[in-house]
Amino acid sequence: MTIKEQLAKRAQDVEAYLTHCLHDRGIPARLQQSMEYSLLAGGKRLRPVLVLSWASLLHPQDTDITDKVMPFAASLECIHTYSLVHDDLPAMDDDDLRRGKPSNHKQFDEATAILAGDGLLTEAFGLMSAASIVKGLPADRVLRAIYVLATAAGAGGMVGGQAVDMEFTGRDDVPLEELREMHAMKTGALITAACECGAILAGAGDEDIEHAREFGKSIGVAFQIVDDVLDVISDTETLGKPAGSDEAMGKSTYPSLMGLEKSKKLAAEYIDTALQYLSGYYGSEQEFLWQLSRYIVDRVY
Amino acid sequence: MTIKEQLAKRAQDVEAYLTHCLHDRGIPARLQQSMEYSLLAGGKRLRPVLVLSWASLLHPQDTDITDKVMPFAASLECIHTYSLVHDDLPAMDDDDLRRGKPSNHKQFDEATAILAGDGLLTEAFGLMSAASIVKGLPADRVLRAIYVLATAAGAGGMVGGQAVDMEFTGRDDVPLEELREMHAMKTGALITAACECGAILAGAGDEDIEHAREFGKSIGVAFQIVDDVLDVISDTETLGKPAGSDEAMGKSTYPSLMGLEKSKKLAAEYIDTALQYLSGYYGSEQEFLWQLSRYIVDRVY
Repeated sequence: MTIKEQLAKRAQDVEAYLTHCLHDRGIPARLQQSMEYSLLAGGKRLRPVLVLSWASLLHPQDTDITDKVMPFAASLECIHTYSLVHDDLPAMDDDDLRRGKPSNHKQFDEATAILAGDGLLTEAFGLMSAASIVKGLPADRVLRAIYVLATAAGAGGMVGGQAVDMEFTGRDDVPLEELREMHAMKTGALITAACECGAILAGAGDEDIEHAREFGKSIGVAFQIVDDVLDVISDTETLGKPAGSDEAMGKSTYPSLMGLEKSKKLAAEYIDTALQYLSGYYGSEQEFLWQLSRYIVDRVY
Repeated sequence: MTIKEQLAKRAQDVEAYLTHCLHDRGIPARLQQSMEYSLLAGGKRLRPVLVLSWASLLHPQDTDITDKVMPFAASLECIHTYSLVHDDLPAMDDDDLRRGKPSNHKQFDEATAILAGDGLLTEAFGLMSAASIVKGLPADRVLRAIYVLATAAGAGGMVGGQAVDMEFTGRDDVPLEELREMHAMKTGALITAACECGAILAGAGDEDIEHAREFGKSIGVAFQIVDDVLDVISDTETLGKPAGSDEAMGKSTYPSLMGLEKSKKLAAEYIDTALQYLSGYYGSEQEFLWQLSRYIVDRVY
């Protein structure tokens, strides 16, 4: 199987869980429709896959680890989805399209989109605790992972990154260092937390957790650079959202600050750094993470 | 001390914790200002006080219980505050005033208000886990309380209640039973969870937890009825928000459906029910909860 096929297969397992995770929670019908409209709109499910993969890598003797970690993994997709729904709102990036479909507030309405985002974010923490309460993972591990994820997704992480991004909009003179820091918060923190939480939930020691975190940081930066590059070189249909929207909004991006070729090279360098943190591990799961890392940057070639 | 003074004194302890709980979290300056603008805008701090009080009532032998439970208690105020910030948004209730000051999106801007709410909600879960990670409460208790709170605040609870409330707006023919159910989600669930989580964090048994929950349900309904009544009989200055706004928005309320006097009587009946759940307990903490219950309904007389 190619890495793309492997990724798609794992995404299917996540999908199967996501499909029912909001059922029987007493959610009003229209609100649930709105939440599932965005949650089940496809996507690579990269963040949940990273949680599952790092947990498997570091606890290979537990063949049930994927099942036990799944609710927690799914929670990252809920958080990622809520952030997209809120980012698309008229008061924020004002995007009408997301993954080739009308964005949530276009399909429903603004109030419903705000509440769908709030609901997804809150339900995410219910899913995290379910990893212990329902699936039996030790409570102290799950609690530590919740703390890591709340910090990564919170006002000093993803939410803060979006706030800084809004401040940057319209400025094409943002220094590269500030841009990197903003992205480290806005997209990097959640990808990093995915890897770190996978390791924590597997019961890994501090050194392994550190490797997971550093791996996540590096692929997080690479992922963002690639995203910026794709916004320039792709067409709208491939992207599923308006291509060239960064430039249209006057956003500073890696390509706008350092050019396309240098951006692509920088992404490749970050992937090389990520691979170093995998070098002490062996087996099929290590191979998967290795190929996944290469795949992130290969998408721009 | 009168109950009002006792409540104010406990609110001060909560206030002291809230004042610094968002510090040193790497939050961008303007976002933190916006979050603290709403979080520190005063209020009775009823929900945190209920957490602390039920924990003290059920674990009187632990003199440090208030300190240990405080981060969790504070998280309920973060969640309550975020819900007010989002409810005030133009796409939702479109309120310009909150507690006598410009609402968050008026003081800052819409995007910042959305993100401040998202940030408060996410940081809340960081605070909850800190009750174990920093304060040493057993992880399994904290995790169970997180699950209860996420469920209460989530799409089948508070967020769902707001969604249903939006659907009801403009309809003055909502049946009383549906109105009660909506309020049970929108305001009741969080008040109920406050009491229940206090009991869980104290390590209480199932019967005590059940009493805390049922007490919370009853005062939650009474609290909402009183809120509706106050909207009719108070002036804008006392209320800190536009009086008569329910009627102006064409909302169904207890007074609009059953009249003022019957509403007041119903609130008193719910408080009587709440007091029954306190009858098996003794001491100063029981006395405090007893008086607090009476105070909720006495505000309308």
